[in-house]
Amino acid sequence: MRCVSAGDAEIRNILITIAYDGSFYHGWQIQQNALTVQEIFQDALKKIIGYQPDIKGCSRTDSGVHANMYCISTKIEHRITNIRLKMALNRYLPDPIACLDIQDVPMDFHARYSAKGKEYIYKIWNDKTKNPFLYNYSLFYRYDMDIDMLKEASKAYIGCHDFTSFCTLDSRDKGDLRRTVKYFNIEKDGKMVIFTVAADGFLYNMVRIMTGTLLKINSGKLSYDSIDGILEKKDRKFAGPTAPAHGLYLNRVFYGDF
Amino acid sequence: MRCVSAGDAEIRNILITIAYDGSFYHGWQIQQNALTVQEIFQDALKKIIGYQPDIKGCSRTDSGVHANMYCISTKIEHRITNIRLKMALNRYLPDPIACLDIQDVPMDFHARYSAKGKEYIYKIWNDKTKNPFLYNYSLFYRYDMDIDMLKEASKAYIGCHDFTSFCTLDSRDKGDLRRTVKYFNIEKDGKMVIFTVAADGFLYNMVRIMTGTLLKINSGKLSYDSIDGILEKKDRKFAGPTAPAHGLYLNRVFYGDF
Repeated sequence: MRCVSAGDAEIRNILITIAYDGSFYHGWQIQQNALTVQEIFQDALKKIIGYQPDIKGCSRTDSGVHANMYCISTKIEHRITNIRLKMALNRYLPDPIACLDIQDVPMDFHARYSAKGKEYIYKIWNDKTKNPFLYNYSLFYRYDMDIDMLKEASKAYIGCHDFTSFCTLDSRDKGDLRRTVKYFNIEKDGKMVIFTVAADGFLYNMVRIMTGTLLKINSGKLSYDSIDGILEKKDRKFAGPTAPAHGLYLNRVFYGDF
Repeated sequence: MRCVSAGDAEIRNILITIAYDGSFYHGWQIQQNALTVQEIFQDALKKIIGYQPDIKGCSRTDSGVHANMYCISTKIEHRITNIRLKMALNRYLPDPIACLDIQDVPMDFHARYSAKGKEYIYKIWNDKTKNPFLYNYSLFYRYDMDIDMLKEASKAYIGCHDFTSFCTLDSRDKGDLRRTVKYFNIEKDGKMVIFTVAADGFLYNMVRIMTGTLLKINSGKLSYDSIDGILEKKDRKFAGPTAPAHGLYLNRVFYGDF
């Protein structure tokens, strides 16, 4: 596809929704000496519109973390329609990254700062035998899971809490570490267990530590009612381990109430 | 895990069922200068029992083709129990290969020659937008699919036919090219369309050409009732293209009636 002429286009702000398989990338944010989704996305966009606009991602995501929905806003000065831009992006982007939707948004919209909340899912393949198709897409956990007990335990996450205990120590988060968790759901679909959590914001590694803590509760090394106490400690060392990145998916970004 | 002593073991014949993600391998059969499932499996087995027994695979599978169920028979002289051997294999095999089951079988059992039939599935991701998680695990097909018409068309595959037209020209198949197709089912589950076909045997690339022919019928370039005529021609050039390997899965191997 040829580069489309900008013509007499006015500048506009667009919201681009993508999905990506994080297995191949060192997360979203551009960095030296590592391939990231942002770098690949910027390169594809530049090939289409002829210059590289400033793009805003909805969040940092770590190496190996996936996105069923990741949002990007960018102000572009180009006549290409959103439909054609989506088609062109899907042509230039590699297989593990797909453009799902593009729409116009107000000029003051910002993919990160306009977000009211996000939803993550964490996938656990719970079987005695590993699944050879899912080793990059879920955590393999071979022990029995007490789903009812975990549902009860996870209720302690819901509400407004200081999540210092559920945040990696060398965190990039500063200031107020309170976040409001709207829901924490646990479903079992065959051998796949899925944790779904929505909050107004997430600290660094928060969902992975919440997951690791629940798995430690499942193993009996923490009691099912220990989460309240861990939150009160405001100390990372009381929570469970950080579950691996490859089970985690950014699933939704909320720009309205949720 | 240490190598387990063979002790005074008697020779026995075992049936090992595995599953594998074919994305990483050049098919099953061992070959020079290419990594295959057979080579990796043999190496793992040798590490556990201390020598390399002769192993029989249930079929050749091509590069990129997956297996939800692949069967191997081998006569081993070792005291290790089947349960321990399964555990050890899952420790030594890389993530994309899993051992699902091991059982004793009669001495004259052969993974390939004892098979009465096999079932393959072919997965098609049917959506306007590619799925970034499935590019190695299904064919991306963006055009509308007329499932009812395809079900009608595929009925012509069922029964005993000479499948010369549905076999790659430089085929390794010799002699009688008649095969009996027991069923050919088409299901749609959300955006995923799955073809399921069982037969007493399959020629080289047969399922992939059957799939390519149905997609050509879907596109209108062949009429829905053209399969009977293509079978009669006994000439590969009248059928549709060979669909890509990455949508194909060996799904079941039948050792009894099916």
